[in-house]
Amino acid sequence: MDLKQIDQFAKETIFEAGKLIRDTFSYELVVETKSDPNDLVTNIDRETELFFIEKIKSFDPSHKILGEEGMGEKVQNLDGPVWILDPIDGTMNFVKQHRHFMITVGFFVNGIGKLGYIYDVMREDLFYAIEGEGAWYNDTPLRKLKPLKIEEAVIGINATWVTPNKRINHEKMIDLVKTVRGTRSYGSAAMEIAFVVSGKLDAYISMRLSPWDIGGGTIIAKEVGAIATNLNGNDFDFLSQDTFIIANPSIHQLILDRYIEEK
Amino acid sequence: MDLKQIDQFAKETIFEAGKLIRDTFSYELVVETKSDPNDLVTNIDRETELFFIEKIKSFDPSHKILGEEGMGEKVQNLDGPVWILDPIDGTMNFVKQHRHFMITVGFFVNGIGKLGYIYDVMREDLFYAIEGEGAWYNDTPLRKLKPLKIEEAVIGINATWVTPNKRINHEKMIDLVKTVRGTRSYGSAAMEIAFVVSGKLDAYISMRLSPWDIGGGTIIAKEVGAIATNLNGNDFDFLSQDTFIIANPSIHQLILDRYIEEK
Repeated sequence: MDLKQIDQFAKETIFEAGKLIRDTFSYELVVETKSDPNDLVTNIDRETELFFIEKIKSFDPSHKILGEEGMGEKVQNLDGPVWILDPIDGTMNFVKQHRHFMITVGFFVNGIGKLGYIYDVMREDLFYAIEGEGAWYNDTPLRKLKPLKIEEAVIGINATWVTPNKRINHEKMIDLVKTVRGTRSYGSAAMEIAFVVSGKLDAYISMRLSPWDIGGGTIIAKEVGAIATNLNGNDFDFLSQDTFIIANPSIHQLILDRYIEEK
Repeated sequence: MDLKQIDQFAKETIFEAGKLIRDTFSYELVVETKSDPNDLVTNIDRETELFFIEKIKSFDPSHKILGEEGMGEKVQNLDGPVWILDPIDGTMNFVKQHRHFMITVGFFVNGIGKLGYIYDVMREDLFYAIEGEGAWYNDTPLRKLKPLKIEEAVIGINATWVTPNKRINHEKMIDLVKTVRGTRSYGSAAMEIAFVVSGKLDAYISMRLSPWDIGGGTIIAKEVGAIATNLNGNDFDFLSQDTFIIANPSIHQLILDRYIEEK
């Protein structure tokens, strides 16, 4: 398997999909259709996933595809080559903000992440990685994350998880929020993961994500030394939904030990 | 007083300041000084404020200047023409993210907002308004905000205010977070205000802001119909720190009545 060739194919397809989204988007904004913006995003989401499926099947029909919109075949296991992708991560940002939404793609072989991509569609910014070769932000290599103290950390976390909820002890999350230097929330898991791998955030925590939200990001994480697991500290379950944390390696275990208590 | 001329002057000065920040920034990143990034931002903050002071005093020495870094004269009242400005709003974003920081400027005459600006330095995006003439996002006029239900709203709020604190009843904030469609937090008040006036967020709430965080934004707010007050529903105190909310007019009073209870 020629990873370089697959990487080339993946980038071209992502850039082309991004352009299609931007074009459709600006057309829809110009004509100001009366249609519900939620329908618009659903349509573009599906069209973009179909676009990926067609491209991938032309490239190599043996590759399986696990996508958010579920338009590929039903993927029962991660045997062989599998693409895990979300055509638009951050759909509410897409609708309301016209920015801060990502295409994110991971290419796995027998469950091992080989190629990972997070593409900021409106900024035309690509975060990506090739297993064992490193990670890049556009043409600039991403560095290994530097250690820091939890008190210096800025973390991505949605306010919901700091309120009483069924999944975790929110009192401990309150301790975390009061301990760190700051919190952020962007409404796109892939964007927050891209920020962690590039040192713009030091951790991102969510109580419920799907494989396509994080598939690409976990592959980039490895190349910069970020640690991505579920909240038990185990590998994320790529065939289901799961809890998720990605963090600078100097604070990953500490956050799990001191601030996460699942119910 | 020729507001058009002052507007022209303000824009030129903001664009020039933005370029100075970007240039200093990329130089510092290239040479990779060992200096503390917090010192770097403090220096650039001060240099930029001095740059504004010199420009304004050359433009008209009778204008007063109230800036975050306090390098202008001590402003005791808002009589006459007063510039209220923050050279870098979102300093932690500046240091860690190299994006999501704003120059924000308001020009007031006898306490009445005349010209307001929020400039995203790295995107080179300007949100601005001229009293009574409208508001713009770069060259595009900003529309009046459309009414929406609280359940459809996406609001900017820092997770801290959802945890027990001295200023407000956080239980009510929890109700708010659970009622709305989503929350965001960007680490720059001016950015969140820019998002509200352009409909990318529907409200932004903070328990403690300074005049320079919001001066420019409140002037833009008026032109699009957004309502900006303190959490008592009164005008923000521009000579002190105060609580703050800016919101779509259809949900401003409802948020104050139902979800805000100051201690």
